[in-house]
Amino acid sequence: MFCSLSPFALDGILENALREDVGTGDITTLSTISPDRTVTGKYIAKESGVICGLDVVRRVFALLDPSIVLEARIQDGGAVQKGDIVAIVRGNARNVLTGERVGLNLLQHMSGVATQTARAVAAVVGTKAKIVDTRKATPGLRILDKYAVRAGGGGNHRFNLADGILIKDNHIVAAGGIANAVRAARENAPHVLKIEVEVENFAQLDEALSAGADIIMLDNMTIEDMRRAVETVNGRALTEASGNMGDKTPEQLRAVAETGVDFISIGALTHSVRALDISLKFVLE
Amino acid sequence: MFCSLSPFALDGILENALREDVGTGDITTLSTISPDRTVTGKYIAKESGVICGLDVVRRVFALLDPSIVLEARIQDGGAVQKGDIVAIVRGNARNVLTGERVGLNLLQHMSGVATQTARAVAAVVGTKAKIVDTRKATPGLRILDKYAVRAGGGGNHRFNLADGILIKDNHIVAAGGIANAVRAARENAPHVLKIEVEVENFAQLDEALSAGADIIMLDNMTIEDMRRAVETVNGRALTEASGNMGDKTPEQLRAVAETGVDFISIGALTHSVRALDISLKFVLE
Amino acid sequence: MFCSLSPFALDGILENALREDVGTGDITTLSTISPDRTVTGKYIAKESGVICGLDVVRRVFALLDPSIVLEARIQDGGAVQKGDIVAIVRGNARNVLTGERVGLNLLQHMSGVATQTARAVAAVVGTKAKIVDTRKATPGLRILDKYAVRAGGGGNHRFNLADGILIKDNHIVAAGGIANAVRAARENAPHVLKIEVEVENFAQLDEALSAGADIIMLDNMTIEDMRRAVETVNGRALTEASGNMGDKTPEQLRAVAETGVDFISIGALTHSVRALDISLKFVLE
Amino acid sequence: MFCSLSPFALDGILENALREDVGTGDITTLSTISPDRTVTGKYIAKESGVICGLDVVRRVFALLDPSIVLEARIQDGGAVQKGDIVAIVRGNARNVLTGERVGLNLLQHMSGVATQTARAVAAVVGTKAKIVDTRKATPGLRILDKYAVRAGGGGNHRFNLADGILIKDNHIVAAGGIANAVRAARENAPHVLKIEVEVENFAQLDEALSAGADIIMLDNMTIEDMRRAVETVNGRALTEASGNMGDKTPEQLRAVAETGVDFISIGALTHSVRALDISLKFVLE
Amino acid sequence: MFCSLSPFALDGILENALREDVGTGDITTLSTISPDRTVTGKYIAKESGVICGLDVVRRVFALLDPSIVLEARIQDGGAVQKGDIVAIVRGNARNVLTGERVGLNLLQHMSGVATQTARAVAAVVGTKAKIVDTRKATPGLRILDKYAVRAGGGGNHRFNLADGILIKDNHIVAAGGIANAVRAARENAPHVLKIEVEVENFAQLDEALSAGADIIMLDNMTIEDMRRAVETVNGRALTEASGNMGDKTPEQLRAVAETGVDFISIGALTHSVRALDISLKFVLE
Amino acid sequence: MFCSLSPFALDGILENALREDVGTGDITTLSTISPDRTVTGKYIAKESGVICGLDVVRRVFALLDPSIVLEARIQDGGAVQKGDIVAIVRGNARNVLTGERVGLNLLQHMSGVATQTARAVAAVVGTKAKIVDTRKATPGLRILDKYAVRAGGGGNHRFNLADGILIKDNHIVAAGGIANAVRAARENAPHVLKIEVEVENFAQLDEALSAGADIIMLDNMTIEDMRRAVETVNGRALTEASGNMGDKTPEQLRAVAETGVDFISIGALTHSVRALDISLKFVLE
Repeated sequence: MFCSLSPFALDGILENALREDVGTGDITTLSTISPDRTVTGKYIAKESGVICGLDVVRRVFALLDPSIVLEARIQDGGAVQKGDIVAIVRGNARNVLTGERVGLNLLQHMSGVATQTARAVAAVVGTKAKIVDTRKATPGLRILDKYAVRAGGGGNHRFNLADGILIKDNHIVAAGGIANAVRAARENAPHVLKIEVEVENFAQLDEALSAGADIIMLDNMTIEDMRRAVETVNGRALTEASGNMGDKTPEQLRAVAETGVDFISIGALTHSVRALDISLKFVLE
Repeated sequence: MFCSLSPFALDGILENALREDVGTGDITTLSTISPDRTVTGKYIAKESGVICGLDVVRRVFALLDPSIVLEARIQDGGAVQKGDIVAIVRGNARNVLTGERVGLNLLQHMSGVATQTARAVAAVVGTKAKIVDTRKATPGLRILDKYAVRAGGGGNHRFNLADGILIKDNHIVAAGGIANAVRAARENAPHVLKIEVEVENFAQLDEALSAGADIIMLDNMTIEDMRRAVETVNGRALTEASGNMGDKTPEQLRAVAETGVDFISIGALTHSVRALDISLKFVLE
Repeated sequence: MFCSLSPFALDGILENALREDVGTGDITTLSTISPDRTVTGKYIAKESGVICGLDVVRRVFALLDPSIVLEARIQDGGAVQKGDIVAIVRGNARNVLTGERVGLNLLQHMSGVATQTARAVAAVVGTKAKIVDTRKATPGLRILDKYAVRAGGGGNHRFNLADGILIKDNHIVAAGGIANAVRAARENAPHVLKIEVEVENFAQLDEALSAGADIIMLDNMTIEDMRRAVETVNGRALTEASGNMGDKTPEQLRAVAETGVDFISIGALTHSVRALDISLKFVLE
Repeated sequence: MFCSLSPFALDGILENALREDVGTGDITTLSTISPDRTVTGKYIAKESGVICGLDVVRRVFALLDPSIVLEARIQDGGAVQKGDIVAIVRGNARNVLTGERVGLNLLQHMSGVATQTARAVAAVVGTKAKIVDTRKATPGLRILDKYAVRAGGGGNHRFNLADGILIKDNHIVAAGGIANAVRAARENAPHVLKIEVEVENFAQLDEALSAGADIIMLDNMTIEDMRRAVETVNGRALTEASGNMGDKTPEQLRAVAETGVDFISIGALTHSVRALDISLKFVLE
Repeated sequence: MFCSLSPFALDGILENALREDVGTGDITTLSTISPDRTVTGKYIAKESGVICGLDVVRRVFALLDPSIVLEARIQDGGAVQKGDIVAIVRGNARNVLTGERVGLNLLQHMSGVATQTARAVAAVVGTKAKIVDTRKATPGLRILDKYAVRAGGGGNHRFNLADGILIKDNHIVAAGGIANAVRAARENAPHVLKIEVEVENFAQLDEALSAGADIIMLDNMTIEDMRRAVETVNGRALTEASGNMGDKTPEQLRAVAETGVDFISIGALTHSVRALDISLKFVLE
Repeated sequence: MFCSLSPFALDGILENALREDVGTGDITTLSTISPDRTVTGKYIAKESGVICGLDVVRRVFALLDPSIVLEARIQDGGAVQKGDIVAIVRGNARNVLTGERVGLNLLQHMSGVATQTARAVAAVVGTKAKIVDTRKATPGLRILDKYAVRAGGGGNHRFNLADGILIKDNHIVAAGGIANAVRAARENAPHVLKIEVEVENFAQLDEALSAGADIIMLDNMTIEDMRRAVETVNGRALTEASGNMGDKTPEQLRAVAETGVDFISIGALTHSVRALDISLKFVLE
């Protein structure tokens, strides 16, 4: 799978998370566990879903203690059932305990994102619509959220304000209209970026098409309007359905896809994440 | 309200979030909006809930442009209905647009935590049980999550591994039993911290009490067992109910509270957050 | 002018530069100048060129001492002749002296970039070709280099590896051909980015067009081949001339532009910068 | 050769440069190249010059992927002709591609500095004059620039404001004369540093010598005046020629050296660097 | 021994110390020592005391050069006599010399803390009083100071303002009395922390006990008053003697311990440290 | 007085110290003190000494709360008697309490350094010997320690390994003798630095003088040998007495000074600091 979670990208995030959780030291562990005690622990799925983040958990432990071994039983993007063993960890008890919560917090969060995404992807399977994310991600964890969306079968919209042009309602107000905004973007922004425009009605759609937008975001339209908009565009631009897509049932989401849009962007994939329940249990040796 | 969100504590988190979202520059805004354009925008609640994070939004803008003014219409911890104006922002259009998403992502997340907490608190009102959080918070945002729990009327459990002693199942396995672990903690850890022990049954409860635990965490017990445990403890320690408390209905949560426990700790308050829907709309001037 | 040099973006770079140059303290200044001495100094152009970076100089001083005043006599992007006063600085003598070199190093470098760019832009004036930069910029100073290119009248190519897709010779080797690479990019990369392909001959050009490339980089072609390539493309993609464009005379550069290419990218604008000579002289008061 | 480019000194600079260039991920490479593809590439000199920076390139790759091997074919400070193979890189295709540009940017820049320095050193060979650099270096890259000057056969003047005392024209104005400034420096600055004074005429020279300066910088003097100044000094201090030395022809530079000065400091060695053209080409395997 | 000095916790402190001491490079070593010279050196105690910090010295060297070997001849917390060999270092001469001073500064400081602590602990041996530290530690080195206190046989009071509640004289003034302050702390602070109150007389002691304080700090009381206070408390809270305990003779300290207090906290253990004299001498090979 | 403690230099150190001491929040203060309570507090000397660090205390508060006012009653370097009021602080009670300890720790430490230095300076008054410090300073606080030495009337030796050449015993061993080392330093190191050599006997002294050392450090010599060494040197180099100078009585130190050495360097000024006792007391308003 397409992957960018190298240690170079991860370590800043993980060291920050470890410093936050460990503080001046894991006082419980340091005061109660012998420094040479080793343990084996099992990561067990407490519910069904899609796993994502085991490489992250492995790196969390590596930052604390390179001798800890995490044996993954499933690949990122793979499905588990309640009770499945997800991974086995072996190593120094103190260091495993100190890193346990940071690893689990990330694993449960990322698996939650992947699970939610997989459900949306399944709802539109067979249509040409691709499920993509937004910038409504967890502050500080964006590359993890976006990775998890891909692990769940979705695609990524822009990562930040620098790698995509998206002219939204507030830009249109401040720039004095769609035509002005698109013209300015074409003149001033790097030519390697497409120009996307958010439209709320057919007058705006026509203006965006006339201005030469590369992508049209259809914001909060009815199914019927989306269908008509796709016909209006007629291949002159890519189309993207948007607006509370996270509140839709699978059937409603499929109806959106069947309007013929190229992309459906869903903020809730990353802004309203239900963590997947996974636990770590030490086994007596 | 008890508050620790000084700029000193916040700025590292917010600068990190801004760097993540702004990257090498907000290309849409810089290429389409005149540098001297000013705007007024309204933050509007799209659903009912408890607001938290307006000081954070204000600080996000201040880091980009100290001349932006955010006028809050409600205090952190206050309730809003769908359609209410939460705040008004006025300032340079470019800088407001560049900071918009980071501010909203944090405001929606923190308001989501506060709203969830307020519902749990309402469920147990009139009992002596206090709703508290856990360390299952968003990596990198823990002080914001914990602040939002308090804004919602809850209390905070320990912030990290250094400011509380909690001997959990895995510690008990690795330390060779509850008695050993409590004795070691009392000998080795700073005397300013209480000693909390997680117990899953009555044998463990007795061992923890005999060892002199200050707080007993009752993990995943039935209502009936919790009641019996509270009676057994009989004031010799504080009691804390724990284990999937986030999956309970208000009625079930109240039943837990009515067993007489002192605290109910709920990981889902912060690990499975549904963002509160809030939007920013510029007004034509 | 299009500008992104806010303090938020600049301060990390400038603090780094100040720490590098000041070390444990400006020992000459601290040991010889009275702490309450104030000075006035003139920035004087020692040769003709385009000025860029006065806001950066102002911010360097502000980081050391907010009371220093820098009065610019010319805007970024403006031309100066030898002997012109570029700016006047007034303030505490110690702090002006301590920040002098960091400010001048950046001002001379950025003005050098702007001056070089302006010369290339002048060479192609009246054609449709736009002069753009590359990623061959000074490590650590990329946003300053790219800003200076714009101050000189040029445009920006992508800022980094995340905000543009450019399939170069080495990618083609490693990916197994142009068609494979373009197909994979379309499937895997965010849909907000155009796909640019570097081609060295007409077979590659045809392959890139067939694969649906959005931008074709014509690498190291003769004028004749570039003209033929532009005709072959015939509006199906944008075209970009590349390859040692920095070694060309103005006449040669104009000949490239007259082939009809949309863009000419020049690495030397930023990788081989001749600093513009500017000095700071204190005036006796 | 005298060398200080340990990983400890380098890593901050290189990580900064990598973060700047990689951003949220090398989208071209990640989307088009298989994760297990390996490659071999040749670094080839496209023109003659002095190589410097191969250890830096090796470290750039090591930060991304410790398994990448860079085999240097020449030592830092060695000369190459157009077409020479400078180094061979072998390793994971994705990681080589991601680090390619940062490594090349630094290698070309440092080799440019070394090449320029070697030309100046050759011009004065056989005289006692030593070519040295200044603080007019690339902000953020000073230790690399200074290392490259040495690789080219030159010497280093002070690294920053803390490790040398240099009383320049503006200090003289602000301190109230040379005598005052030298006296204050001797009294207040650490005794381990020599005191250097910039003089523009013979009155200043006499004042500096009387005050006991250890080094005299002769600023922008004619050849004749420099010769007379060296005679005047007559071994009582070291002498350093300075002022637009980078604009001189080899013959002019030699004439400066033949005045008998101990040092010639040239800002252009590092402020106006022409990158040495070096390319990386993958070979088909 | 209880230990938290993992590389994860140490590296920030040690890299900071190395950057401070090495600056732009160890000019003496780089200019005089051959890069391939290796050395053996002995760390020798120049006076008697308790050693602490050899793991820190080892890590300092590892950050500069992982191939340096430090062979400890004694464990942290062990006693040495004048002339004893404490450790042997072997490795590259340049890197050993560059790291020598940072390592020694930390080793001598930490051994100084451990030695002072061991003397206080010896003074009260056989009593139930435990010697503990305070927050009057060296800014930036707190975890090292607290580790050294334990190496000397003492215990740790709270590490920072977040992991302990201590209501001192100034809090009492600002909060409007002891009762108010204790009530507010119990209501607002995490329940995992004990509440400690500083009292200066018996009226305050009674108020603190009535309010339910968990720990009573007896500030600057006479021996007689401490004894009476311990009797008054009579097991209802822990007691801690405090106030210029570092100025007391061993006999006076023992008298404090014999009053029956549980803890004696001594700021001077870490705020007034006499470094233990240890030197590193290279041996001719 | 010569001063380099600008906010630019200080803030990194102070923010680090505040983060260390405040952790996730000052739980005592936040839970017990009303957010709008203001206070006035007096800094009172509990013993006689020399004050240093009030600007540092002011900056600590400014980082937490720019509205806090610290009114100094004495300048850095001024003497106080027991009971004197050193400064008055006024401002928000929470923020004063949160910054109190970090400020006091630094003030007491720096005043301790200044006091110790002033005593050494007084011992040699009237001789030509200048008391200077060493690199045996507190890791992370070097610029504060060196500032405090100057506040006490002493001078500074080099700040770090980059701004002075000091060939010590271990360098001599590794470089193959004094002559080799001095020759290599003169050839390789920047010419702006003097060359200092540590000698233990007269053979070494002769070798160092012959090699052209600029400064001779006389290590652990008897008074008689120092006198003879000064005569031998006879103005050909500066002389510096060194070696356990911190253990000497004022009379012994004066005897060293009377040998005619130019400098006496004392490691104990900064490696074995006895904090000056200063307290902060809130006044009832």
